Amino acid sequence: MDGMSAMRSGRAPMYQQISEALRQQIADGTLPAGAQLPTEADLTERYGVGRGTVRQALGDLVNAGLVVPQRPRGYFVRERRPMVFRPQAEFRKRPFSAEMDAFVLEHSADGREPRQLIEVAIVEPAPDIAKRLQLEPGQLAAVRRRIRWLDGEPFNLNDSYFPLDIVRESEIMRPEDITRGANEVLAELGYRQVTALDEVYVRMPTPDEVHRLELGPGTPVGYHVCTGYTAEGKPVRVAVTVLPGDRHVISYERRWEPQDGAE
Amino acid sequence: MDGMSAMRSGRAPMYQQISEALRQQIADGTLPAGAQLPTEADLTERYGVGRGTVRQALGDLVNAGLVVPQRPRGYFVRERRPMVFRPQAEFRKRPFSAEMDAFVLEHSADGREPRQLIEVAIVEPAPDIAKRLQLEPGQLAAVRRRIRWLDGEPFNLNDSYFPLDIVRESEIMRPEDITRGANEVLAELGYRQVTALDEVYVRMPTPDEVHRLELGPGTPVGYHVCTGYTAEGKPVRVAVTVLPGDRHVISYERRWEPQDGAE
Repeated sequence: MDGMSAMRSGRAPMYQQISEALRQQIADGTLPAGAQLPTEADLTERYGVGRGTVRQALGDLVNAGLVVPQRPRGYFVRERRPMVFRPQAEFRKRPFSAEMDAFVLEHSADGREPRQLIEVAIVEPAPDIAKRLQLEPGQLAAVRRRIRWLDGEPFNLNDSYFPLDIVRESEIMRPEDITRGANEVLAELGYRQVTALDEVYVRMPTPDEVHRLELGPGTPVGYHVCTGYTAEGKPVRVAVTVLPGDRHVISYERRWEPQDGAE
Repeated sequence: MDGMSAMRSGRAPMYQQISEALRQQIADGTLPAGAQLPTEADLTERYGVGRGTVRQALGDLVNAGLVVPQRPRGYFVRERRPMVFRPQAEFRKRPFSAEMDAFVLEHSADGREPRQLIEVAIVEPAPDIAKRLQLEPGQLAAVRRRIRWLDGEPFNLNDSYFPLDIVRESEIMRPEDITRGANEVLAELGYRQVTALDEVYVRMPTPDEVHRLELGPGTPVGYHVCTGYTAEGKPVRVAVTVLPGDRHVISYERRWEPQDGAE
């Protein structure tokens, strides 16, 4: 904690001082992932405050996504087992750097059992999707909606939109896994993607996302939108992935491109 | 809204049905950014419920970061003016695609007044930073801490860490803007970065971040960590950026790399 926040907590209400002290212990590893917090009775005694104040402090940490209540046992430090979400893998299966290799390995889903549910629909997409696909009003899209689980826990939602007129006759319309990938099917149809633009937004989940992803309190999501373009600049796919913050780290590797000049 | 969530809201408590209806109107643009929501009295009458229920529904939207209370005038749809955070600009000033060009332009800070505050410190960095810089226990780092404002609003926090032994004698130690960039200084010192690994985490802010970034309720942050490596694989810089979700979109462009095989 820096000097500024230490000063502030001196003036802060008691419940904030308690939650700040616990937060600090979680941050520095004194209370590691999975550890049980001191009980309400412990905290009441230690700080000489009422049960209500202690509950407010603990509620603070629950809302911040740091702590999980497991009644009647007590409160526990939330486990984060982030898995790497690596959009670049789409165009480059193998990382180019040893650093990325090591990073992916460290945050892999090794030994965990993946599963997914696929559903295909024909829709008039929301305006933000239609705009990215450059669809005219009324033009339809095919969407492949997937929920992915690991060890029975929902990991992310992934919806891929395609202009209906180019994929209508293809296996993209079948609600099954495409082993060689939808990108390869697009390429076979004459629409190979050569560039993509990724956008990452950070926000609170919608009630529907909370339900489908079984999100706990204080769990924001990353909202990743990838638009893929052919060499002619035609957008042929928009993939929207909703990534619970407690289960993912989004990662990219970059290379210096000397053709751009001195720096 | 899909069929599943429609069914759910049929069983949902009244306050959730109200907040869901308002959420829907915000999502589809019936209530655009900056618009005032119906007043508490309006909602009380329209739904035939008590004031407490209406307040709970509005509180829901505030906590989700969708609505801002501006007492005594009422509740307003939150404005999101996301600016592009484009880590690749570090190694490649100009986007390679027309799509990225257009995207950056659309989400630029045009006409808004930037300002920053820089502070330099010598620290024993937190374990996660020390690990990325491959520092031995006790080895020190120099950190340049920046807060960036736009139009008087704090936009993000950016802390860059360097192994102290390589930057000790350089202008990186001076709390001033480096026009040609700290990366160029590193290069002059013989530590040109040629690759970087980016990690994006999504989480709720700490109390300190809430304070420094003046975050409203329901505003998660993106926590972006960039580690830069020399050609020899030595990490020479770790830049940590805290990006309020309501003010940023993180963006990358990608290119297909055919040397990787068929897909």
